[in-house]
Amino acid sequence: MSFSPLKIIIVGGVAGGASAATRARRCNEHAEIILLEKDEFVSFANCGMPYHIGGEIPERGKLLVATKELLERRFKLDVRTRSEAVQIDRKSKEVIVRQLIDGHEYRLAYDKLILSPGAAPFVPNIEGVHAEGVYTLRNIADMDRIRDAVETGALGTKEAIVIGGGFIGLEMVEQLVARGFTTSLAELLPQVLPPMDPEMVVPLHDELRHQGVQLTLGDGIKKIAVDSAGHVTGVELQSGKVLPGSVVILGMGVRPNTKLAVDAGLTLGKTGGIATNSSLQTNDPDIYAVGDACEYVYAPTGEQMRIALAGPANRAGRLAGEHAATGQCFPTAPVMGTAVVRVFEQTAAMTGLSAKAASRSGIKFRSVTIIAGQHAGYFPGASPITLKLLYCPESGRVLGAQATGKDGVDKRIDVIATAMAFKATIRDLTGLDLSYAPPYGSAKDPVHQAAFTACNQMDGLGDVLDADADLSGYQVIDVRTAAEIAKAPLTGCDSFVAIPVDELRLRLQELDSSRPTVVSCGVGIRGHVAQQILVQHGFTKVVNLSGGATLRRRAVQ
Amino acid sequence: MSFSPLKIIIVGGVAGGASAATRARRCNEHAEIILLEKDEFVSFANCGMPYHIGGEIPERGKLLVATKELLERRFKLDVRTRSEAVQIDRKSKEVIVRQLIDGHEYRLAYDKLILSPGAAPFVPNIEGVHAEGVYTLRNIADMDRIRDAVETGALGTKEAIVIGGGFIGLEMVEQLVARGFTTSLAELLPQVLPPMDPEMVVPLHDELRHQGVQLTLGDGIKKIAVDSAGHVTGVELQSGKVLPGSVVILGMGVRPNTKLAVDAGLTLGKTGGIATNSSLQTNDPDIYAVGDACEYVYAPTGEQMRIALAGPANRAGRLAGEHAATGQCFPTAPVMGTAVVRVFEQTAAMTGLSAKAASRSGIKFRSVTIIAGQHAGYFPGASPITLKLLYCPESGRVLGAQATGKDGVDKRIDVIATAMAFKATIRDLTGLDLSYAPPYGSAKDPVHQAAFTACNQMDGLGDVLDADADLSGYQVIDVRTAAEIAKAPLTGCDSFVAIPVDELRLRLQELDSSRPTVVSCGVGIRGHVAQQILVQHGFTKVVNLSGGATLRRRAVQ
Repeated sequence: MSFSPLKIIIVGGVAGGASAATRARRCNEHAEIILLEKDEFVSFANCGMPYHIGGEIPERGKLLVATKELLERRFKLDVRTRSEAVQIDRKSKEVIVRQLIDGHEYRLAYDKLILSPGAAPFVPNIEGVHAEGVYTLRNIADMDRIRDAVETGALGTKEAIVIGGGFIGLEMVEQLVARGFTTSLAELLPQVLPPMDPEMVVPLHDELRHQGVQLTLGDGIKKIAVDSAGHVTGVELQSGKVLPGSVVILGMGVRPNTKLAVDAGLTLGKTGGIATNSSLQTNDPDIYAVGDACEYVYAPTGEQMRIALAGPANRAGRLAGEHAATGQCFPTAPVMGTAVVRVFEQTAAMTGLSAKAASRSGIKFRSVTIIAGQHAGYFPGASPITLKLLYCPESGRVLGAQATGKDGVDKRIDVIATAMAFKATIRDLTGLDLSYAPPYGSAKDPVHQAAFTACNQMDGLGDVLDADADLSGYQVIDVRTAAEIAKAPLTGCDSFVAIPVDELRLRLQELDSSRPTVVSCGVGIRGHVAQQILVQHGFTKVVNLSGGATLRRRAVQ
Repeated sequence: MSFSPLKIIIVGGVAGGASAATRARRCNEHAEIILLEKDEFVSFANCGMPYHIGGEIPERGKLLVATKELLERRFKLDVRTRSEAVQIDRKSKEVIVRQLIDGHEYRLAYDKLILSPGAAPFVPNIEGVHAEGVYTLRNIADMDRIRDAVETGALGTKEAIVIGGGFIGLEMVEQLVARGFTTSLAELLPQVLPPMDPEMVVPLHDELRHQGVQLTLGDGIKKIAVDSAGHVTGVELQSGKVLPGSVVILGMGVRPNTKLAVDAGLTLGKTGGIATNSSLQTNDPDIYAVGDACEYVYAPTGEQMRIALAGPANRAGRLAGEHAATGQCFPTAPVMGTAVVRVFEQTAAMTGLSAKAASRSGIKFRSVTIIAGQHAGYFPGASPITLKLLYCPESGRVLGAQATGKDGVDKRIDVIATAMAFKATIRDLTGLDLSYAPPYGSAKDPVHQAAFTACNQMDGLGDVLDADADLSGYQVIDVRTAAEIAKAPLTGCDSFVAIPVDELRLRLQELDSSRPTVVSCGVGIRGHVAQQILVQHGFTKVVNLSGGATLRRRAVQ
């Protein structure tokens, strides 16, 4: 070929960069494609790192998914590791690259530039934070250091401390316990998994404690204690509480690496990420941004925000690579923030808005929470999923969902995330034709049950009361059996009437039909039946306690 | 109350009937609701029966989900078991009921009538079919008989024969093997699971054989051999082949119980089920039909058809009950025919149209098949899912999907079924924001991979060739390594050129760029890379073999 080939430069291999590079190559065999990466490894499975530290993924090599050699041979990429893009000269359309091995700098011309700089772990400016034994986890070198420390036990005690109960923090806690470490977890907020609603993560708190984790909530890190040899010996929290440990993992969130973009005059969005359009172009149409440093359209609000997740990064990289190579691509789909994490025997997953996030954004919503088996109750191994569904009170449009449970949680959240991509309403969810056989689900899936409950609520056929509501002033009727009530009394409730649902019609005269009334059962199903009976017998205001006594115990201790 | 209450009669408790009755009650506390059931048990978990026979569900009582007593106490239903509706008098709006215990008949007036008569197993009119040891499985009495036979071994040998490789047949095979029976399975068609495409069920054939099942395909039952005591001793197939066994399960499909409806002058649809509208009303607006005997709107074609599955029956029952009790309900959602079955260690699931069904209906389609891990390949326990996606070649609308694998199959089919409810295109699937963490999925989910492949095909960026295509006349290039080729050569291929994908750019001169060319790899991913390289180096017609050598081995033995 005699024409000058298209020159594409990609900055950063992880979190969308390698996807962009390989897609660009597949779309344009003749482009010159250079992939710059400041680390030693151009692409690796960063989501797998905690599991290699814990030994669940024994082979380190498995994480090195796309090596420099593979990318060069198969995709004819010019991969330059230990090479940092230090400046973008937009006028001359050049990137200034520094070779980290010798400090040498040179200029590289581009026609199209794709930025995938990722994000860096937040490290607080506190005493002792640079001591030996204090780690963040972002790249392979971090992983190797932590694995060495926990495997050899070189640092003395078998006690570890994780600061921050987000995704990485929870995964690290699990893996440190697997390594035999006595593990403490401290989180500044009063709950783990800050993106989820507080009552939804109570099963995770229970699971962490059940697994022997010392859980401290609502308490931040103050300083790190260090011995005379410069080794960490523990963490002091803001409350004064001291957690002992020779290994400290800081999982306190990440900050987007936007300096390169900002210095080049690229626009940032409201949440501090590089602003992009639906082709992932920045305000300079020859420069794209993907991954943890950029902003995407967040579906539930329609606004741009940073969403530091691997799935969206991968898909954005693919589209940016295609657009850079061909000048066109289909628009990116809005992102829901769908995420999942395993916490020992529990799974937690979410998509779209939580009640917290909706309230923060001033978005009107209603919600229901149901507790239902992941598969038919009569089939062995049935275990409950708690599923919370948020919807718009006017249109019924689904705004978000959260779930916890032992099994089948990811499936339900994926189904709802899929429906949300099409602006589904709660009514739409009731009609979904989901697969059913006893080992896999129920004829009425938890998704259906949540949607039925929400529709009943929206249609005025069965209003539900939030699990943490103040019950004083209500006539409270517990419609469970006496044995059930004795085993797990309704929390946060001073006085109630106990009438099993099956006796309710016969004992209406014991109740005052003019009083505002709350019915409650185990998880909300019998409560709904009781509610219908009372309403149709002239009770003027009856609500069903969401999730019954089970959810109440999580919301009101 | 002084007004005369609404009278609702429901005929048949299983497959939607009980759902209709309880929903009617919840919507109308004062209606008179009578549930007629000709069997002893008004409602039971019929999908669980094979698992109780096999012992996986040890407690029989677990299957009796909604007992007569519960329905009476909690829902104030008038439940009449052993009571058959023998005639409908539409003029007087009465049902004639026969008490099976004494033959007494009486008339019951209705305002609204809901028919849920279900379907009956097909029993062929062949020699020996009524012998002792020959069973069909439809109700609790059937289950008890079979369980007795397999548990006590009363019938002599520990050999069993299942006729018919549909859902029930496969579940029974699994459970008979679990009971220690040497089990034969005979299916008239050349494949098990007739709703699926032939190449998709090859992993099930392999699994059945691997589990010791004697599998006979393309051979129907001719007669049943019986000993002098009237016990079955085996089955003779149409080929003359004889299968030995003391237990025979007939799983040859069901016939809808429509006699009552037909005698009453209700209209049947093209597929022989009772025709209904979107409120489940028959041509008589006071009579509804739900469950296995009625027809629903089938989403992929928009036509009415019978779909004998528990999920749709349940949802239809709920809506019919609501409409009967209140005069209104939201319209039923179209049905996709989403179904799943466990076959030992394998799961098979589908939704919407198969290639077979599309061809039969004259619906134009294209398809792609991918093979991808159910979760990240670097995480322990990764196992492949084979996923076939059908779409409309003009609009890209998704028409159906099928999948097999050890794990995660139900999730992918549910996601696609959900997307199909919103008339999703393959482009929509590429942008789905699905949950990802290493134990649950991949940043590029199998659903994404299938959609990417389909979009590449539709956009002309990478046409794929069906796995069973005739390769003669093509220049075939196997782009795997020599070791891979030696281990699993490309089947149905006389001559090929072996060039590993990573050497392809350097060895183009070994190939003829003017010839129609097929590239093939392990599962199709490297083939796509090779295809792009060749196309962009001037090869005029290059296709990628769908699913590579792996799928080829299933399609061409």
